[in-house]
Amino acid sequence: MKHSIQTCYSPSLYHLFEDPEAIVVVVDVLRATSAICTAIHNGVDNMIPVAHLEEALRYKKQGYLVAAERNAIMQDGCDFGNSPSHYLNNALEGKTVVISTTNGTQAIDAAKDATTTLIGSFLNISTVSAWLKKQNRNVIVLCAGWKNKYNLEDSLFAGALALELLKDSRFFTECDSTISAGYLYDLAKKDLFGFLENSSHRKRLNNLHLEDDILYCLTPDSLNTIPYVTEGLIKKMPADYKLEPRKVLADMKQG
Amino acid sequence: MKHSIQTCYSPSLYHLFEDPEAIVVVVDVLRATSAICTAIHNGVDNMIPVAHLEEALRYKKQGYLVAAERNAIMQDGCDFGNSPSHYLNNALEGKTVVISTTNGTQAIDAAKDATTTLIGSFLNISTVSAWLKKQNRNVIVLCAGWKNKYNLEDSLFAGALALELLKDSRFFTECDSTISAGYLYDLAKKDLFGFLENSSHRKRLNNLHLEDDILYCLTPDSLNTIPYVTEGLIKKMPADYKLEPRKVLADMKQG
Repeated sequence: MKHSIQTCYSPSLYHLFEDPEAIVVVVDVLRATSAICTAIHNGVDNMIPVAHLEEALRYKKQGYLVAAERNAIMQDGCDFGNSPSHYLNNALEGKTVVISTTNGTQAIDAAKDATTTLIGSFLNISTVSAWLKKQNRNVIVLCAGWKNKYNLEDSLFAGALALELLKDSRFFTECDSTISAGYLYDLAKKDLFGFLENSSHRKRLNNLHLEDDILYCLTPDSLNTIPYVTEGLIKKMPADYKLEPRKVLADMKQG
Repeated sequence: MKHSIQTCYSPSLYHLFEDPEAIVVVVDVLRATSAICTAIHNGVDNMIPVAHLEEALRYKKQGYLVAAERNAIMQDGCDFGNSPSHYLNNALEGKTVVISTTNGTQAIDAAKDATTTLIGSFLNISTVSAWLKKQNRNVIVLCAGWKNKYNLEDSLFAGALALELLKDSRFFTECDSTISAGYLYDLAKKDLFGFLENSSHRKRLNNLHLEDDILYCLTPDSLNTIPYVTEGLIKKMPADYKLEPRKVLADMKQG
């Protein structure tokens, strides 16, 4: 049985891709999912993704640690923005952090009915692809984009992941977004930082002097942790994690 | 004053791009806008774009000529599908044709509130770009895609048009979709037909033995006609056509 790879360029188009058996990989390279991967890798126990800022601030009033960013800027009354740099040491080990960002948490919210949602970034891309190759499932890469528009950096991740999976003959793609993302990654792979120089979000972050963050987020394979969404929380996927059996196949056997 | 170029990959995302002063170029390379360009060039007087098939069939009952296609197949009870080949001679000179297609007419419908909407294709790309360079307006390329998903062929058109406009220093882009489309076109331009070999829609059409149509639609600059949308009809843009004055500037002068 062959497994398809699809890429969705905007959270608001995700309903066109839904596949109850697929594994969804949510990516927001600059910077939400890079921050989540870093936090979970360095010991944060739970992250609570919330789409709306008001909800994040309600958690803050209840005493939670809150990371909230809009338009690349940390929001008033919160503990962090969405820079991975907040999580580079283990000061937050065992803690719960509520997170709300311009694009990343909207993408996680869009995929909330998926049976399995992983959090991807260049930081953990090889760990994610190695794990996906061990499952027998279709894959949907859900790019957070920028306010529901396409962005280059998330597409590059989608292309990189797809090209890696397609080395395994059990995967295939007939999805134009995936094919396009693969071409782009091939053009960019020797110098992701340079390739993104003209991208809209890179310019936005440059204006805020976040060059170190960008360099960090574009460094592949610095982490071997897969965060995943379980019962509304983002947690570290345990080594013995098993996918639920395919419902569709189970229903067919019953039927 | 500099003019921005943006690319929208899906009709259902067009609301994110709306700009009351921009010129919108709708493209559905395979095959709706290629067919419209061919029909209008060869003398069809009016085309009435309708998004829904039922509406097209109501026109048919009233005695109109109707071109209607869904999933690349001509619909029962209609005169044509969306193949440009129906319009290659002047048998329909002076006629009105109602047209409804899977993606192209939905895209025209999405842009119905734009002040100026042009119909683009590789067939008239140089005529369109030369005309755009004479206007002082932002440009939005609206790709019809496939059922609101991204497709390669419309992106290639967007990239080709953007790269041509960007040769003129009065144009700029900060739109990641446009940058990405430009990279893709650069990769593909030597052999558009070969580049699209693996695309989803090319495969769909190949199964229907439409290779001649595809070759025709990918031939740049065979037509020097610009169809545009005026009062709900698609007509040939007259040589003396003038854009309405910018409303925003007029309001500012009044204010």
